[in-house]
Amino acid sequence: MTRLSPLVLERLMLYHRFLTQEWDSEGPGAVTSREIAEAFEIDPTQVRKDLGAIGLRGKGRVGFAAHEAVEAIRGVLGFDQTHLAILVGAGHLGGALAAYRRFANYGLRFVAAFDTDPSKVGMEIAGCPVRSMDDMKQFIVRHQIRLAVVTTPSKAAQEVVDQLVGAGIEAIWNFAPARISVPDSVTVRTEHISLGFAELGYHLSS
Amino acid sequence: MTRLSPLVLERLMLYHRFLTQEWDSEGPGAVTSREIAEAFEIDPTQVRKDLGAIGLRGKGRVGFAAHEAVEAIRGVLGFDQTHLAILVGAGHLGGALAAYRRFANYGLRFVAAFDTDPSKVGMEIAGCPVRSMDDMKQFIVRHQIRLAVVTTPSKAAQEVVDQLVGAGIEAIWNFAPARISVPDSVTVRTEHISLGFAELGYHLSS
Repeated sequence: MTRLSPLVLERLMLYHRFLTQEWDSEGPGAVTSREIAEAFEIDPTQVRKDLGAIGLRGKGRVGFAAHEAVEAIRGVLGFDQTHLAILVGAGHLGGALAAYRRFANYGLRFVAAFDTDPSKVGMEIAGCPVRSMDDMKQFIVRHQIRLAVVTTPSKAAQEVVDQLVGAGIEAIWNFAPARISVPDSVTVRTEHISLGFAELGYHLSS
Repeated sequence: MTRLSPLVLERLMLYHRFLTQEWDSEGPGAVTSREIAEAFEIDPTQVRKDLGAIGLRGKGRVGFAAHEAVEAIRGVLGFDQTHLAILVGAGHLGGALAAYRRFANYGLRFVAAFDTDPSKVGMEIAGCPVRSMDDMKQFIVRHQIRLAVVTTPSKAAQEVVDQLVGAGIEAIWNFAPARISVPDSVTVRTEHISLGFAELGYHLSS
């Protein structure tokens, strides 16, 4: 299978949400590319191409078996596994992510949070114990953690990421609005929470 | 000026961040399209086109006056105005957004939060008073609120949005992972917080 691009992966995530959340699972059990396409205002050809890329072929007018499509997407996106993750930065955003119940559907499970603030160490955020940054590397190694979610201030992000990479982390979900660099073997996904406001501010001021 | 697309607006937001946060403002004061382009791994032609679309022309090798570029972007994206906003849903994510200090740079200011949970009404989240949903319409009208940020559960999102639109809200920033529909006159931006995990889950499982 060729490597799937981030855009294809995002669409597969959306199809998964549609099929598990909006699609009538009491219905006939088959979903057409057109039905999926209409939900996201994209072309049915795109849907067939994306599902084809993960080995799914629809049957003429009948479409795709919804259950099979969901399983296939979960397999490709790794939702059928458990991904133990640590949170770096135990502030408001860290707490919101730790508390976000939907992540359990994707196999994502936070096992510890780390913060530089001594007053937070020993506390819990959303059921997740907060530990000292000094213990982070040891924790990652001992528990074979592969995924870290970063919610530190921008200025601290690169230094934290360097520590994570040094400890063997393979994937980083970065919520600090900063560019960070990592070796090619590590995957980083940076979320810019403010980005969407550009569209709204533009609309409100024009 | 032709209507700018969401992708152009997002890039302008990123250039703004680069120029205010990473660019050395003690330096010569001019920035080239190449320097901006390198920060985001895009083509310098794209940068010149985006800045040209908001009326900025660089000078040969000298580039753009950084200060002018920042001011122009702030004007177009409405960051030079104050946007009073309400928050609907006073949970963990709502609290994180209300506490997010960076929003002040964009003129975004939360003045109230609304929740259906009576035990939250009368409390504060990140300095923002939590009010009853029953008072929402009156509050919007009285304070001429144009922007609402939705962090309710998915199932409640459409009903909440209908109420917001009925009360005269013009722009909605939706953090509920649900498709919502609004009249053409209202702008909606939906953020899918989980979306980025597709890329990471794929990397971790392949």
